[in-house]
This record gives sequence, C-alpha cells and structure tokens, in this order.
Amino acid sequence: MIGALNHIAIAVPDLNQATRLYKEVFGGNVSKPTAIPEHGVSVVFVELSNTKIELLEPLGDKSPIAAFLNKNPAGGIHHFCLEVDNMDNALRKMNDEGLQVLGPPKTGAHGKSVIFLHPKDCLGTLVEFEET
Amino acid sequence: MIGALNHIAIAVPDLNQATRLYKEVFGGNVSKPTAIPEHGVSVVFVELSNTKIELLEPLGDKSPIAAFLNKNPAGGIHHFCLEVDNMDNALRKMNDEGLQVLGPPKTGAHGKSVIFLHPKDCLGTLVEFEET
Repeated sequence: MIGALNHIAIAVPDLNQATRLYKEVFGGNVSKPTAIPEHGVSVVFVELSNTKIELLEPLGDKSPIAAFLNKNPAGGIHHFCLEVDNMDNALRKMNDEGLQVLGPPKTGAHGKSVIFLHPKDCLGTLVEFEET
Repeated sequence: MIGALNHIAIAVPDLNQATRLYKEVFGGNVSKPTAIPEHGVSVVFVELSNTKIELLEPLGDKSPIAAFLNKNPAGGIHHFCLEVDNMDNALRKMNDEGLQVLGPPKTGAHGKSVIFLHPKDCLGTLVEFEET
C-alpha cells in the first residue's frame, strides 16, 4: 500500500534561520518561502535528490504546529508523509485495523487528498498519507 | 553538499509490533530483523520506493536509543540520515560553521563513515551524515 516517502516536515521557530542551515551550511537546494494561510504555515521546501524536507513556520493564530513548537521550542520533526495510491482503500484499511484517523480526508498543501494517523497507533510518530 | 535522504530511523519499544504495523497494516516491504550488537540495536528495514525507514529496538545494556525510549516510551523518530559525498569536506564545513559534531566519524550500520550533528544546531532534530 505505502509507496514513496513524500516528505519529512520539520516545525521550526524561525524559517529564515532554518533556511540558512539547509542552504548555506548543508548546501541544499531550497525554495523561496511560501505562505499557506489555509494551512497555517509558511513553508520552505528542501529538494533532496529522492524526496524533500519541508521546513514549517507557524502562520496566524490557529497554526496546527503552534502547540508542537510550544512543547519543542527549538523545533523538531512534526510528521512525515507516505504516498498511497488510493485513499479510499487506505482509509478502509486503517478503519479495519482500528487505527485512529485524525478527521476526514482533506486537500493538503500539494492539492492532493491527505489524512493523518494518530501517533498513539504509529510508534509515537505523526504519519500523513497523501494520495498520489 | 547534502544528497539523498538515506533513511528515517524510528526508535520502537517492540520490534515485532512495529514490523506488523509497517508490513500488515501499511503493506510495506520489510526485512527480517537483524541484530547489530556493535550498535546496540536490532533493526528492521522498511524499503520504500525512494528511501527507507529503519525500525530500531534497543539491544543490550548500552543501547544508544535506550534514553530516547525512556523519554518517549511509545517510540518516535530518533534521527534521519542525509548522504554526503565527502565526509572530510562535510566535517570541515560543520566545524567552520560552529555546529557541534557528536564524536569523530564512525563506521555506521551500513559500513560507511557516519557522523551525527547535535540537535541544538539542527532545528531540534538529530541529523546523521553518511558518506556515499
């Protein structure tokens, strides 16, 4: 069912500083910052040769990463995203297996259908599925 | 400097349970468990189409992931590994930029030269570099 690793998302308190680390220190290929108000984040994409890292800074009052940064002020890995070819099948399988899905499928930052699985069911990690 | 994402490492309290999640629930392609006593872990590799996830269970009294699991009993992302083409150059750059490298280069679980960077300098994440 699971395909490629689409991205690792790192929540950061300061997007400029985070971008500098990946661009100037690590020599990575980074995008310009993009504000995504409907997802409550500003994002910089680090394009690796096989996947990408998303650096996420909170945007607005209701950012979904604000609570995470309160607990982890220096930042940290917020989630990672695995691709699935069919979201209906993935959802059915998660329900059959008794995994908690956090809300109905939404349209994610890449314009694709996404869901998140509760960390309690996923080895303490927040896992996103994105339909390819 | 940085190339591909080599792997994400997830520390887990129960390797059998973790393997079941990735194999039976997520439908992933997983290896048999392998004990690596010199690194203090037992590992299962989840082969994704573009990278891999390593599920790590502590092995022995001095496992380097034991403290992490004490703090995160359900498990969690322990580190991720970026490939670099030349470790000498990477080390020099980290030193020039003032990033803390955790000990001298060692031979990692894949038989390659690896270093770890302190999370305080890397957005709260433990970053491994592996020479290609």
